[in-house]
Order: sequence, then C-alpha cells, then structure tokens
Amino acid sequence: MPATCYTYLGPEGTFTEAALRTLPEAATRQLVPKVSVPAALDAVRNGEAAAALVPIENSVEGGVTATLDELATGEPLMIYREVVLPIAFALLVRPGTALADVKTVTGHPVAQPQVRNWLAAHLPDAVWESAASNADGARLVREGRYDAAFAGEFAAATYGLEPLVTDIHDARNAETRFVLAGRPARPAARTGADRTSLVVWLGDDHPGALLELLQEFAARGVNLMRIESRPTGEGMGRYCFSVDCEGHITDRRVGETLMGLKRTCPKVRFLGSYPRAGVDPDDLSTASERAGTSDDAFVAAADWLARCQDGRP
Amino acid sequence: MPATCYTYLGPEGTFTEAALRTLPEAATRQLVPKVSVPAALDAVRNGEAAAALVPIENSVEGGVTATLDELATGEPLMIYREVVLPIAFALLVRPGTALADVKTVTGHPVAQPQVRNWLAAHLPDAVWESAASNADGARLVREGRYDAAFAGEFAAATYGLEPLVTDIHDARNAETRFVLAGRPARPAARTGADRTSLVVWLGDDHPGALLELLQEFAARGVNLMRIESRPTGEGMGRYCFSVDCEGHITDRRVGETLMGLKRTCPKVRFLGSYPRAGVDPDDLSTASERAGTSDDAFVAAADWLARCQDGRP
Amino acid sequence: MPATCYTYLGPEGTFTEAALRTLPEAATRQLVPKVSVPAALDAVRNGEAAAALVPIENSVEGGVTATLDELATGEPLMIYREVVLPIAFALLVRPGTALADVKTVTGHPVAQPQVRNWLAAHLPDAVWESAASNADGARLVREGRYDAAFAGEFAAATYGLEPLVTDIHDARNAETRFVLAGRPARPAARTGADRTSLVVWLGDDHPGALLELLQEFAARGVNLMRIESRPTGEGMGRYCFSVDCEGHITDRRVGETLMGLKRTCPKVRFLGSYPRAGVDPDDLSTASERAGTSDDAFVAAADWLARCQDGRP
Amino acid sequence: MPATCYTYLGPEGTFTEAALRTLPEAATRQLVPKVSVPAALDAVRNGEAAAALVPIENSVEGGVTATLDELATGEPLMIYREVVLPIAFALLVRPGTALADVKTVTGHPVAQPQVRNWLAAHLPDAVWESAASNADGARLVREGRYDAAFAGEFAAATYGLEPLVTDIHDARNAETRFVLAGRPARPAARTGADRTSLVVWLGDDHPGALLELLQEFAARGVNLMRIESRPTGEGMGRYCFSVDCEGHITDRRVGETLMGLKRTCPKVRFLGSYPRAGVDPDDLSTASERAGTSDDAFVAAADWLARCQDGRP
Repeated sequence: MPATCYTYLGPEGTFTEAALRTLPEAATRQLVPKVSVPAALDAVRNGEAAAALVPIENSVEGGVTATLDELATGEPLMIYREVVLPIAFALLVRPGTALADVKTVTGHPVAQPQVRNWLAAHLPDAVWESAASNADGARLVREGRYDAAFAGEFAAATYGLEPLVTDIHDARNAETRFVLAGRPARPAARTGADRTSLVVWLGDDHPGALLELLQEFAARGVNLMRIESRPTGEGMGRYCFSVDCEGHITDRRVGETLMGLKRTCPKVRFLGSYPRAGVDPDDLSTASERAGTSDDAFVAAADWLARCQDGRP
Repeated sequence: MPATCYTYLGPEGTFTEAALRTLPEAATRQLVPKVSVPAALDAVRNGEAAAALVPIENSVEGGVTATLDELATGEPLMIYREVVLPIAFALLVRPGTALADVKTVTGHPVAQPQVRNWLAAHLPDAVWESAASNADGARLVREGRYDAAFAGEFAAATYGLEPLVTDIHDARNAETRFVLAGRPARPAARTGADRTSLVVWLGDDHPGALLELLQEFAARGVNLMRIESRPTGEGMGRYCFSVDCEGHITDRRVGETLMGLKRTCPKVRFLGSYPRAGVDPDDLSTASERAGTSDDAFVAAADWLARCQDGRP
Repeated sequence: MPATCYTYLGPEGTFTEAALRTLPEAATRQLVPKVSVPAALDAVRNGEAAAALVPIENSVEGGVTATLDELATGEPLMIYREVVLPIAFALLVRPGTALADVKTVTGHPVAQPQVRNWLAAHLPDAVWESAASNADGARLVREGRYDAAFAGEFAAATYGLEPLVTDIHDARNAETRFVLAGRPARPAARTGADRTSLVVWLGDDHPGALLELLQEFAARGVNLMRIESRPTGEGMGRYCFSVDCEGHITDRRVGETLMGLKRTCPKVRFLGSYPRAGVDPDDLSTASERAGTSDDAFVAAADWLARCQDGRP
Repeated sequence: MPATCYTYLGPEGTFTEAALRTLPEAATRQLVPKVSVPAALDAVRNGEAAAALVPIENSVEGGVTATLDELATGEPLMIYREVVLPIAFALLVRPGTALADVKTVTGHPVAQPQVRNWLAAHLPDAVWESAASNADGARLVREGRYDAAFAGEFAAATYGLEPLVTDIHDARNAETRFVLAGRPARPAARTGADRTSLVVWLGDDHPGALLELLQEFAARGVNLMRIESRPTGEGMGRYCFSVDCEGHITDRRVGETLMGLKRTCPKVRFLGSYPRAGVDPDDLSTASERAGTSDDAFVAAADWLARCQDGRP
C-alpha cells in the first residue's frame, strides 16, 4: 500500500469507512481497512500510511478505550480532523427476504443495545447472535448463516445485500466521533471553532491534583468538552486523563493553559488542535466567554506588563 | 435457583468466580454464573438472587463500562463489598502436553495484551485466536480445538486441564476490582477504611460544573479515589460521573459532601459505602487528612453553631 | 446612668447620635455620649449600658479600625442592628453670619476631604483648622474661636448655631454604617434581608489559607459583602479578617459555612446576624443565588442522606 | 528644596525620619519633613522631591490608610524600597527630671495603646494628653507644658531632652513598615527576596470576584503577603484591594499573575517590585514553592508550547 494511503478501522462497510469517505482529503487516496485500532495507527507510525481514521467516542457507549490508550502511549501521533457521524442501522437481508422470513439476526455487540427496542417491537421472536463487526455480520448473511444483519445502510452494496428497514436506532441522537491521526506536524490551522486534545498525567501523591488540573483551565476561561480517566497500568488508583477543550493551541488562553499543565503535571501529551466538526465559527457565541480571555486581552496585558517592567505603567 | 443465591459474571472458572469464592458470605450459598453483567444484576433486581459479583475496574483496562452503566441506570442497586484480585494467568493444557507441543493458544481478548510479552519470549511461533472468555478458551482446549489456553490457574480443575506455566502477567500489579451488588438496604457498617461510590449527573449548560463537583469534595477534605465519565445517552458532550471517594456515608464529612452534591447537581445516585478490600483501618494514616474534617471537628462545630444561635457564642 | 441606657460615640451632635436617634428602640432610652469607641463599648461590657452605637464603616474612609478591633477582641459583644446614614455636611455659623464673613472654618479631620472641593469653590480664602470632632468644632464656633464649622445640620440646635449652607459633600453617596452592639444573646430575628458578621483568624503557616476561607463561603453559595484584614498584634504578616456575608445564621447555607470556618480555622468569632438597613426582603432577587442553596434544598438533601443511610435511596 | 531631596512624614524626630536615615541612598540627601502623607507624596509628584518615605503598615494598628489611598489614586507613583522598624518608645524628659516627678505625659494617640501597660505599672497616677505627633509631644515637654513625652529615643537630641526610660512597648514585636515612593521608572533590580505591590479593582456585579482574584495568584503559585480592602469612594460595598505578593515582576510566575489580573479585573495599578527588608535571598527556602512555578519551569513550558505549535511535541 502507498505511504500516502489512509488506514481505518475495518473491515470495509463499517461506520468508520463511511466516516472516512466524508473527508475531502480522503477522496483521492487509497483507503486501507485494518483489523484493529492499534493496527490502523501502527501503520501510520511505521510510515506505511499517511493517516488513520479511528473511532474515539460514542454518545451511547462512551470513549473507545483502544483509541484513547493508543494515542496516550507509544510513538506520538497527532489529530488533524474529526468526523461526527449519526449512528443509524439498517436491517440488511439477501434480496427477496421479507421481514416475516427473518428468524436469526446478527451484528456487532455494540449494535445490540441500540436496536434492542426495535427488535422487541418488530422481530420479537428472532434470535440474536453477535458477529465480530457489523460488516462481518453482513458477510455472514450473504453466506446464508443468518437471515439478517444490523449494519450501516452503506454496507449493503459491498456485501450484495439490500436494506429491508433503515434508520433504526433506539437512542435519540446516537453519534460516533472519529479522529484522523497522523505523525506529528504543525497543527491544523485555527478556524475559530476548534478543539484541542491532550493527555495529562497527575502526580500520585496528591488527592487534589485533578482539581488543580481543572483549575488550570478555569483560571484562563478555557471550557472543557470531555474528560476521561484511563489507568496508567501502574496499579489500581493510578490514572491519566484524556481531555478535550475548546479552542486552538494558538489561542493565547489555550497556550497559557497548556503551559500551566506542562509546568505543574508530571507529563502532558499534546494530541492536536483541529476544527470542530459541524460547527460554524460564526455561530459560536462569545457570550459565555469569561471576560478577559480573548487574544486581544492577552496581548494588551502583555503590553502592560512590559510597560510596567520598563517603568511606564 | 434459590433467592438466596449469588450470581456472578460467568462462565465457571473465570476470575469473577475466583473473586466471589474469597467472600465468607459466599461460602454457603449457591453461586450461579450468568452470561453477562446485565444478566447477573437483573437476577438481583428480579429477586431471583440475593446479590451479584461483577468486575468494575481493571488496573490495565480501566472501568468495566457494562457494570458502570448498569449501576448508574435502571432499578437502583447498592454495593456492599469489594474484592480486589491480582490478575495472573496460567497456561492451561491437556495433561501430558509439553511447552514445545503448543502451536495454538487462546483466551479472552482482554488477556492478550497482558500475556503478549510472555508469548513473544516463550512461544514466539504460537498462533493466538480469541475466545469468548478465558473459561471458554479452557473448554475449547479440553475439546482439542487449541493446544493451550490462558486462564486463571483455578480454572484447570473445572476443565480437566493442568497448569503448565503459572503466574504469567506482563503488567506489574495487574488487578481487577469486583463489587458485590444487592438491592438497596442499610449500607455495610463503617470500618474506618471505607469507600463510598456515587454517580453524579451535571447540568448541561455550565462549563465549570465538573470543577464545582470536585470542590464539593475538596471543601470537606474528602479524597477522591476514582472518577470516570460516562455518556448519559442524551448526545455527544453529555456526561455523568462515576465517583469513588474515601470514607463512609456515616462519616460527617462524607455526609455533608453528599448533601452538597445532592443540592447542587441535577441528579445523584448513592451506590453504597463498603469496606476497602485489603486495607486495615489501623494502617490508615490520618496525617494527610485536612485539618478540621474529623467527626469530632464536625460535632464541635455544630455545638458551637447551636450556642451562637442561642446567644452563647 | 441607668443600665438600660444606650451609649454612643460622642459628643452630642455627632452623626453617631443622629444615627442612634433613627432607631425606634432608642426613642425611650437615655442616650449617653462617650469619648471613644472603646469607652462606649466598655460601658456595655461592664453592664452600665444595654447597648452602644458605634461607626463601623465609611464609604469614603473605609473601616473604623477602633470598632473592628474592639469587636474582635476582649469580652465578646454581638451586633443587633445596623444604621446607614448618608453623610452630608452643613456649614454652621453664629446667627447673623454671612458667607462673606467666614474667614476661618473647622471640623473633624475626616470631614476635610469630604468638603475640600466645596471650600475651594465657595470659600477659597478661608483657613481650615481641625477640631477633635465635628461637634467640638461647632462648640468652638459658638465660643467665637472660628467663624464656621462643618457638622451635621442636626448639630445646629444643640450649639445655638444656624446652618448657612446644607447638603455639602464632595463624594457622591458618602455614607457611614453604624452598628448597635450589646452583650451576647439570641441574634435578631431573621428577616430575609440579613447580614452576618464574623471575625476569622487564619493559621500562620499556610499561604492559601485566605483562599480556603473564601471557598467555605463560595462552596455554599454565600455572598461576601465586606472583608477587611486587621493585624493580630502578633507581628507583621499576621492577620485576622473581619467579614460580613449575606444571610442569617439560621439560614442553612450560612450555618454550614460558619461550621466550615469553625472546623478549619484556628479561631472564629460570631458577631451577629441582623437586618440589613434599608433593604426590603421582598426586593431581594433570588436570581443571583447559586442553585441548591435555599433552605428547602438543604432540608431535601438532609432527607435524602437519611434515606440513603437507611437503605432507601 | 532641591529636586534631589527626599521628603518624609514629619515632623523631625518621628519614627519615619529614623527609618529614612537607615537608607544609604538617603545619607547624602537633604531630608525634608512634610505635615502629612499626601504632602510628602505630592512633593514627589510635583517634581519638588525625588522620593518620599511614608509609613504603610503597622503590626499593631494595621494599614496606614492615608498612604494606601494616596498610592491607589492620583498621579501614579512607584515603590522602590521598604524599611521595617521595630517600634519602641522612650520616655523623654527635661534633663534632671526623675520618674517620681512625672505627673503629666503626652504622645501621639497611636502611641498610647502601646505604652498603656507600662504606664499602669510605672506611672499609675500620671495624666495622659494626646499630642499631634510624638515629636510634637517632645516639643511640648521642652516648652514645659508636660513633664514627659513618649517618642523614639532618637528624638531626644533634637528637642534637648533626655531618655529617662527606653525600650518601652506593650506589644511584642511591634513594627512599622515604611515605603520609599518615587515617580514611575524601572523597578528595583530583582534580588530573589522581593515583594511586589498592587492595587486591584473588582467588578461590581460579581460576588465571587475576590475569590477569582486570589485564584490568579494561587494558580501560579504566588504567595500573598498582605491584602487590604479599601473603599473606592463610589458607595458602600465598592472596594479595591491593596495587595502585596512574594516575588518580583520579572519572575515569570509573578508576571503571568499580573497579566491575569490585568485581563480579568477592571483596573490594576502596579506599585512596584522591591527588595524585602531584612530578608536574605539565600535564607529563603524554596521548599514551600508550588512545583512548576520556577522561572526554569516557565521557560521549559514555553519551549514545549512552541515545539507543539511547530509540530515537534
């Protein structure tokens, strides 16, 4: 595969592939499915691929721990883009199958809680068995092992099936967020509606350390978007925190916050600043911004400090 | 099964069963394996079982989301005991198998990262395939499908196998914490070395809400032991927090903290106060306690307040 | 003098006397001027007087340190009422004096900055000399030593003078706050628009102690109205803090705050809860109250805690 | 008087003059007493004097409000030096007077509480009358109006008196801190044991504003040394805060704190960074410093931020 290709969490026909195809920069590249998140990211680390798209968070299931842990450790990677995809399932069947014919259904275990109510209402007697992925379930339907599979509607063509029912989802607004990770380089340009991702390790000995971490953000008026604890692997009770905040590393308030964390925490890993998917900078109200946290305010304060140091306060 | 039985995350031969057998109160009860965490807990909710033991946290893999989410939602349950088990694997084989004979190995996917280094060193050419559980892997070895399975040493007898190598683990100090959950009743008695578990929902509209949640603990000198965000299912960016703190609900500082959370957060679920596994109260130093947070200090302050209100300050 | 009398910071004709006369409870008592704040308060401590009115704060000059220090130390006293008086001066002259006749003026040194602009505009050539009190200045005018005195308009009658010009004040909204202090007894009844006064000593050794003091208030949503540092007399850098907050000691949020201070600070002196002068409880918006800090929220949280402790969460 | 002279709060023979004479830079200058703190400082503002020494804080009486308010308002001034003087009184008499002859004593009203116990023990029958200053009291003794005056021992020569008793003080460790203020110029050089003085105004509308002010310091590990509220003159309840913190404006943590205040508070006035009197930088422990607040830590964090922005994290 060419080093300019993009890898993704496969197999073909998964939501990750669908997410990747929404990115203009992917349109002209070879897209290579990988069997796992580590495999997709290792291809980038090894130089076999330019970037990898992997799921990082689901609004129903929570953080994707394989992704969080892979980004937190090992050779550094950086995030350049995010994609947020609404998750709705189709019931895929072999052409000609009617709903009344469906006795066995399959899908990824994660899909099951999201279609449970629909199953109870429409196929109360169908037997569910899990597959390794939604796409794999589709393949097993094509092979005749099950009557129907829950998968993305877009997977039908790949596996020669047809969507019997579409837009199935129990939870309102179920979404998955994916990130495009590459080797470290300059962050994506600031758009005004950006997200910055970090991993922060806390000192062991100090019960108030998480509070102090959050105060580094609060002191500069930087809003947290997501915080997730992950074990460091050094024993029960030792955590690091995967954090997303609003803003871009070149925003002065974000830069000062990052420096504050770097100074006071044992270890910080910067994972990138990138545009927030589906958010127009012009729609972002600055009303909830804490006073004095704009770039202009930072520049004016630095000027004033310099004047004070020069004796012209 | 009798309503006095205990359920656990099965099948037989898993670490969960081994953890359950360490509890004296389990010694005389029927222990019933269930296929999933929800199934084990639902049996308690339905009155089919008195309590269920389920894993809640692993020092390598992190929180067990099925357990966190089941305890956070649905009919309330409460935690009465915890068990912490060091996780070390044995390589189980059919009697007579030598290490040189092992060409294929199996085990739960979670086991793989914890034995990867050992495999690379001792069985570099063996092929790994995942099983549905460690115990299931042992069963498949008995049936001849694989040459060896990674599982707990205690599983050997159940499956007619023998442990060829024991105490295999890549991460130092790998441990899993299990909790015994029952229907709500009076919390376990205070021991002086206790843990209190909660789920706290934050208001949506307010970026500093997590900071304020932590300050409720800090203001009363209550140390956090674990905090984990979980999606509420109401869309990306909406979280609740699963929290463990030091102390017992009958400790005054813990009680005031819980009331503070109850007053200021939209929703709080109390999940129990219970003895910390393996911690002797006499060994707990009070040196790191914030001044003025003992029960005596709370009682003295309440007396003083009453005197002030009576005009005898 | 009868033990039911009220003392005040004299002499007769001062603003303090005018403030005292606004209190209905003073209307039927003997009012006794004293030469100093300590003298007025000592009369209460000794049982010679029922209460004393003394100035505590001026919107131009700041805290009245004699009052702050007297209340912070020695035999405890408590505040039962406050009076806030706008400070405007009259130019008092002997009957028949015209403005053009005024060559020398007098008044208390504190009065001077408050009439300086008026003097410059209307009597640019008049010579100022300080008197021991505004009332004393009036006396000296009567005796012919000066042509005019700045004092309260109400002092004219006492000293046989007439107010040539009234309502003189440089600072807009200049006000003085006075407090009525008595021996400790039950606080004044809660009105819904109350002020609570305290003195809090901090531990020496701990740079963040003041921050923690303020957080005890913030954690319970209690608003600070005034905070003033005073030396403890134990050397440079040792301070106690004289603090006023909104609310009454019987408000649950105030009570919990006071207990928090009592637990965590070396020493706290409660100086009383009393109605805010000139504030109608019905006009107080609860909009700025932090959510969950009403008495109802406290009671509901205590009920919930009790249910949790009983196993009925 | 020459523009290179220093003014001070007079008259001659006060503690302020004694403090000024301890400064090497004063040794060769003309020293000019002024009748008040405003007069001493106005001479500097007008260019008539190079600097003025005025008292700012007394360990028994607290802040000197005239000084605090003069420095907070009007044409800006800056502090370049501080002097801390132990305050002990001598009983000055005309030559030949014995203790038994002393029937009347005088001194500044501030002196009285500091010699009260001594008077009660040694001159129980002596009558006290206040003088305008300690030095003025000495003058009145020389003129025969009183038998003895409490003043600094150094005042004896100026007034032709002799110190009958020395080292009189009720409060242990009574000290006064004086500051040398000049027109704005480059701050005094950093010594490693420095003090930085500020005045900070808070927004009106916001009860947590003082807490946020303190958190700007705490977030960067900068210790507060003194904080004093002063009315702004805009009505009861409106305050500004006079603040001293440890460190020099060229210390990175102090600089970032000052910028944080400048950004988030309506108004900040920098009053100077100057060496702490009597503190040897080598004796200052860095043990109580919060981790990550040294200049090195700030520089390292800024380097890291730049690398992150360049894509070399």
